Amino acid sequence: MHFELTRDFLDNLIEIIDKKEDKKAAEIMADMRAVDIAEMYDSLDLEQAKYLYLLIEDREKAADVLAELDDNDRTRFLKALPDDVIASKFIDHMDSDDAADVIAGLPDERQEEVLQKIKDIDQAGDIVDLLSYDENTAGGLMGKEIITVNINDDVEKAISEIRKQVDEVDDIYYVYVIDDDSMLKGTVSLTKLLLSSKGSGIKDIYNDDVIYVKADMKAEDAANLSDKYDLVALPVVDEIGRLLGRITFDDLVDVMREEAEKDYQMMSGISEDVEHSDTIWKLTRARLPWLLVGLVGEIIGSKVLSGYETQIASHAALAFFLPLIAAMGGNSGVQSASIVVQGLANGSISIETTFRKIFKEISIALINGIICSALLFTYNFFFSDSFALTITVSAALFSVIVFASLFGTFVPLALHKMKIDPAIATGPFITTSNDIFGLIIYMTIGGILFSII
Amino acid sequence: MHFELTRDFLDNLIEIIDKKEDKKAAEIMADMRAVDIAEMYDSLDLEQAKYLYLLIEDREKAADVLAELDDNDRTRFLKALPDDVIASKFIDHMDSDDAADVIAGLPDERQEEVLQKIKDIDQAGDIVDLLSYDENTAGGLMGKEIITVNINDDVEKAISEIRKQVDEVDDIYYVYVIDDDSMLKGTVSLTKLLLSSKGSGIKDIYNDDVIYVKADMKAEDAANLSDKYDLVALPVVDEIGRLLGRITFDDLVDVMREEAEKDYQMMSGISEDVEHSDTIWKLTRARLPWLLVGLVGEIIGSKVLSGYETQIASHAALAFFLPLIAAMGGNSGVQSASIVVQGLANGSISIETTFRKIFKEISIALINGIICSALLFTYNFFFSDSFALTITVSAALFSVIVFASLFGTFVPLALHKMKIDPAIATGPFITTSNDIFGLIIYMTIGGILFSII
Repeated sequence: MHFELTRDFLDNLIEIIDKKEDKKAAEIMADMRAVDIAEMYDSLDLEQAKYLYLLIEDREKAADVLAELDDNDRTRFLKALPDDVIASKFIDHMDSDDAADVIAGLPDERQEEVLQKIKDIDQAGDIVDLLSYDENTAGGLMGKEIITVNINDDVEKAISEIRKQVDEVDDIYYVYVIDDDSMLKGTVSLTKLLLSSKGSGIKDIYNDDVIYVKADMKAEDAANLSDKYDLVALPVVDEIGRLLGRITFDDLVDVMREEAEKDYQMMSGISEDVEHSDTIWKLTRARLPWLLVGLVGEIIGSKVLSGYETQIASHAALAFFLPLIAAMGGNSGVQSASIVVQGLANGSISIETTFRKIFKEISIALINGIICSALLFTYNFFFSDSFALTITVSAALFSVIVFASLFGTFVPLALHKMKIDPAIATGPFITTSNDIFGLIIYMTIGGILFSII
Repeated sequence: MHFELTRDFLDNLIEIIDKKEDKKAAEIMADMRAVDIAEMYDSLDLEQAKYLYLLIEDREKAADVLAELDDNDRTRFLKALPDDVIASKFIDHMDSDDAADVIAGLPDERQEEVLQKIKDIDQAGDIVDLLSYDENTAGGLMGKEIITVNINDDVEKAISEIRKQVDEVDDIYYVYVIDDDSMLKGTVSLTKLLLSSKGSGIKDIYNDDVIYVKADMKAEDAANLSDKYDLVALPVVDEIGRLLGRITFDDLVDVMREEAEKDYQMMSGISEDVEHSDTIWKLTRARLPWLLVGLVGEIIGSKVLSGYETQIASHAALAFFLPLIAAMGGNSGVQSASIVVQGLANGSISIETTFRKIFKEISIALINGIICSALLFTYNFFFSDSFALTITVSAALFSVIVFASLFGTFVPLALHKMKIDPAIATGPFITTSNDIFGLIIYMTIGGILFSII
């Protein structure tokens, strides 16, 4: 069954740590899975975590714990350990992609020192290769642990080749078929190998319809591709098609989740990847920038409004609906922008023509605008004694909803064209812009109507 | 390589359809993957899609296309086809979980008719079993296609058992080890079987540390679990531990993505799962409800403000900052709420004490409130001629940021306690509530300060 971290468990464990009951603590570590240990470290201080860590006897598990820690915790952890311990106790037992991530997280001057202390030269070589890829590309995600068979072999030879390679690879999802030049030709499943007669040639049983990516493909695109085709692992090739490595689904899922979280945080006006458990300082730093952007925008808005001082002074009731106009503009704009951003993220709007997009958005904005302003008109018609105000507020609401919806559609599309992350358009930026435009629309309509009616 | 849907490809294909060039169209269908065909249907009308569909010769591919279609498209498609075609052409060739989804999407009266026309009685029985589970539970996600070996067998017997079962299962991720009562005991990898001598017992080589879920576990929890432990497939057991089926990672990833999209759309004030390519009617229906909630809230806000009419009439400058106060309250509230919602969704805040949460949130709110109101004070100090206004606006901004941050933290926590989706707290609901409270705070402070200074 799976492990559940409870307050009781934690209190009990901290007592064991305080009493330095090594044997008991080591037993608990032996019973826990690596990812659970890594998760638990969030609730312990560094000294407690280090004490427990050194009691993990299984080196592979110790390496896995390090791989599962989040970047900040790992950096703190590694800082406290000597180079040769890092190299021999962890790096030697890690998958190459995790090992490269750990090395990349070390300060530049330490990277070389640790690399030189790795005993397994193949592993060290793989890490150096992997470090050359940008971490946001397919190359930056891949590991070198692949099982390959030659297209010219027969099943018996292939199985014996697999037996030789199997030690390095934890999970065989696909056996890759390559030619003498290491060019990726296809895949063959273990089941197929198990079921075929020993003399059949790989070239007669392999599947040549393989989806692969180039090493320089954006990590996000690789993740979308593997999601679309439900791939457990995605082979990575170089410019001319030679097999370099594979990305496993767990790393691709992480990319997808990070992208989704980034978009979510962008919309909520948070500028850094944060969690509730982060420090006050980190959380403040993530939240303050967009608050300041909003503040400056709204100060401009107040400046705009001050231009209408006489109008507001003579018709104070105009002011009552300022927040309504601003809020409804913001709401409509965010709705439009977020639908566009999601469409761009999953690639679903690429084929629809721009004309059709605009036509649809205008239709939706008109319908929503008419319904909302009709309701507001009805309310004011019965409860307000100024007919000019009733007309002004409803007309402004209608205009603001239509304007904000179109603005919310255009801005992310334009940002996307300019290669800027369109998700910016869902945050306080668009709300604030819509506030300002909305106020101008409102006061202009008010100025005209109050002078006529 | 993977397929890219382009306008040119589509125009060319539509021309082929118009000219009824069956052979050319069938060739194109044979070259395309099921998921690409399903995706392309979005850009075709029903008649065009049906024409192409009937030209797919490979029945397994035809079944896969149906499984990959989104619910609406599938419903339209199935409506146009007779029961026995659905049963024999698709259901017989589908994995049991996909088949159950298709049947569940049919109108009640048709479900039984189609089920009775399925030729493979085992498949029909599996589907009936699967239909009994709630679609939002692990049982509702699982398929019956599992490979099992008995714990009492030796390797040779196990491999021959696997050979018998392998026809039904597309991808073997794990071979499950069960006892004579079908109780799940563990897993054994194909590699291990391949590498062990034929005489060794399964009980000596299997891995008993297996993570499983009960059939009634919430789908979202199952997805989080498989994500945490990087599982390619998750075995599902009944109340007493008998193995029922497995959920594959692609279905679990879909659950994760849907949850993330739901939270995202909730925050953007969209009440239904929509995509940019949906119809105008569907998009309007998804957007209007929250706009109306916002509208009603802001009408209440305007009513509140009307209580301060004389104050606004005598100090029109107070009105200039109404949108600023409202917007900053909204921004701070959404920031707090979204961090809590994300923390609840990934389970990371369960262990932190409530006291610590509140302490942190107050600290962050105080820092952000002080910085923002100090900046606003400085601005007004130099550019406003009313000192009472300068003090009022800054004091109100500080209070509103602190209040909105705490409100944004408490509301999702309270909703979660009441078993309501906390993500509601990130949408227009919290922005609107914060607007109203913010205005009250602002006007109250204004009333006091203007009468003193």
